[in-house]
Amino acid sequence: MKKITDLLPLKYPIIQAGMVWVSGGKLAAASANAGILGVIGAGSMKPELLKEHILKAKSLTNHPERLAVNVPLLYEKTKEQLQVSLDLGIKIFITSAGSPKTYTAWLKEQGAVVIHVTSTPELAKKCEAAGCDAIIAEGFEAGGHNGRDEITTMVLIPQVVEAVKIPVIAAGGIIDGRGIAAAMCLGAQGVQMGTRFVTSFESSAHDHFKNAIIHSTPSSTMLTLKKNVPVRLLKNKFFEDIKKLEDQGASEEELVSLLGKGRARLGMLEGNLEEGELEIGQGCSMIKKTQTVQEIVTEIISEYNEIKNNLIEF
Amino acid sequence: MKKITDLLPLKYPIIQAGMVWVSGGKLAAASANAGILGVIGAGSMKPELLKEHILKAKSLTNHPERLAVNVPLLYEKTKEQLQVSLDLGIKIFITSAGSPKTYTAWLKEQGAVVIHVTSTPELAKKCEAAGCDAIIAEGFEAGGHNGRDEITTMVLIPQVVEAVKIPVIAAGGIIDGRGIAAAMCLGAQGVQMGTRFVTSFESSAHDHFKNAIIHSTPSSTMLTLKKNVPVRLLKNKFFEDIKKLEDQGASEEELVSLLGKGRARLGMLEGNLEEGELEIGQGCSMIKKTQTVQEIVTEIISEYNEIKNNLIEF
Repeated sequence: MKKITDLLPLKYPIIQAGMVWVSGGKLAAASANAGILGVIGAGSMKPELLKEHILKAKSLTNHPERLAVNVPLLYEKTKEQLQVSLDLGIKIFITSAGSPKTYTAWLKEQGAVVIHVTSTPELAKKCEAAGCDAIIAEGFEAGGHNGRDEITTMVLIPQVVEAVKIPVIAAGGIIDGRGIAAAMCLGAQGVQMGTRFVTSFESSAHDHFKNAIIHSTPSSTMLTLKKNVPVRLLKNKFFEDIKKLEDQGASEEELVSLLGKGRARLGMLEGNLEEGELEIGQGCSMIKKTQTVQEIVTEIISEYNEIKNNLIEF
Repeated sequence: MKKITDLLPLKYPIIQAGMVWVSGGKLAAASANAGILGVIGAGSMKPELLKEHILKAKSLTNHPERLAVNVPLLYEKTKEQLQVSLDLGIKIFITSAGSPKTYTAWLKEQGAVVIHVTSTPELAKKCEAAGCDAIIAEGFEAGGHNGRDEITTMVLIPQVVEAVKIPVIAAGGIIDGRGIAAAMCLGAQGVQMGTRFVTSFESSAHDHFKNAIIHSTPSSTMLTLKKNVPVRLLKNKFFEDIKKLEDQGASEEELVSLLGKGRARLGMLEGNLEEGELEIGQGCSMIKKTQTVQEIVTEIISEYNEIKNNLIEF
């Protein structure tokens, strides 16, 4: 089996997740500088804005080879997003929310590495068949959009590892060295972490959102909108509004109407904690403070090695 | 901090979970013989039947000190169940589904070790304050009754470990050496495994139920009955009947009426896969065959040590 560190030019097998309204050029560059994969989340960006963020990231790092773009395959501008990225020298793509068949072969022809995000072993097999180089297997704990089968990281990772021959990167509920070590024990070759980097100094999340995360509890998030597209949110008024409608048996249309547009931007970027959508992983309550990306990476690597060296023999 | 292996006279820090209709005297004795904690699940037993199972277990093992009883604190016969067990020399109790305050002090006066099952760090603190000797922290993945906050093992364990000074045993989604190693990385001192032992040769589960587990997929279980008492079930006709009622906005009373009585016995002990309630953990699809408890324990210990020795340095 190919190793993830042969596939990606990283110091550590860690991916900073692409996240709408949170992971722009500044965060991606900080991640690349810290030795991990810096991913620009293109989901919320028009091609022009994505171009700006890629250029910004490149101007802030001497490791452009550690920059990647995350493209959810569900917007009409997907092809343009991919083309803009390729034109600016991006060679690593993380794709999600759509069929891995659509763009993988074409991206590979352009010399790119393609990693698709999955939430079941079945989809992982389809990714492998479509030619993906690696899989990010994301558990129920993860923030934002999530699978319908509610398979947790603990249960998902070993089964995805068994299902495919390509490397598997674990995601969902991984906040620190403890989670990284657990994921490696489950058979992953690396991890993707999103939530931990939302509160990083370099993330674009609003300070109000960062503070809400730092003061959250293990019960602060919940997977919701299961009839539409399941998404894990920090509980707030917006979440309660959704829940009330769902409990009343609202239709998909009624829910879409409540949601309106721009809720994610309103919450995560503009800091409206009442009316905004706050996508975050269940592990958010393990985050105690804001740190730079470099501080986070140094800390989690040290934690990982300490745990590894202290595991008892049975 | 006290070590779990000082607290429990075991060869390995592994607890075979007490499970209604599945873990009787035969399974508990096999577990004790294999060096782990053998737990009789008293939930489905009247005191007279519990007595029979304890006597049976004692007759089948030279390690009666490794026998325990799991008592859900919600039936009227709870005190009698505890008394019968104490009278027969049981010194280790696992309590769940009720306040740890009710019986812990009294059981400690009788010289017993008390371990309470929790699904949140907050409840873990209450257990510690009530005098419990250890905590079993059980994640969303676990079979049977489960917490309302849907906190997964990956996210729950580190936070319970931080919340209390007493030893923490991880449960939920742990099927083999990979899961055990992951749990130890997350800070647990040991693990409780239920689902894996349901398919053991010595379990009382019906062969039809065992076969259904062996042929299950990662999507085969789901947490349901969230308005009443959340429970993770293998999907079958009975599960779909509940789901249909819930989707129609049924009241708690309507649901209780559908459920009727004896569904768990019908499914798990009598093997009615259509109309019975099949409680099982999400990790069930990792189980490939029926084995003796000794085979399972030998295998998972060997897996654990191999994973421990092969973890890469970052």
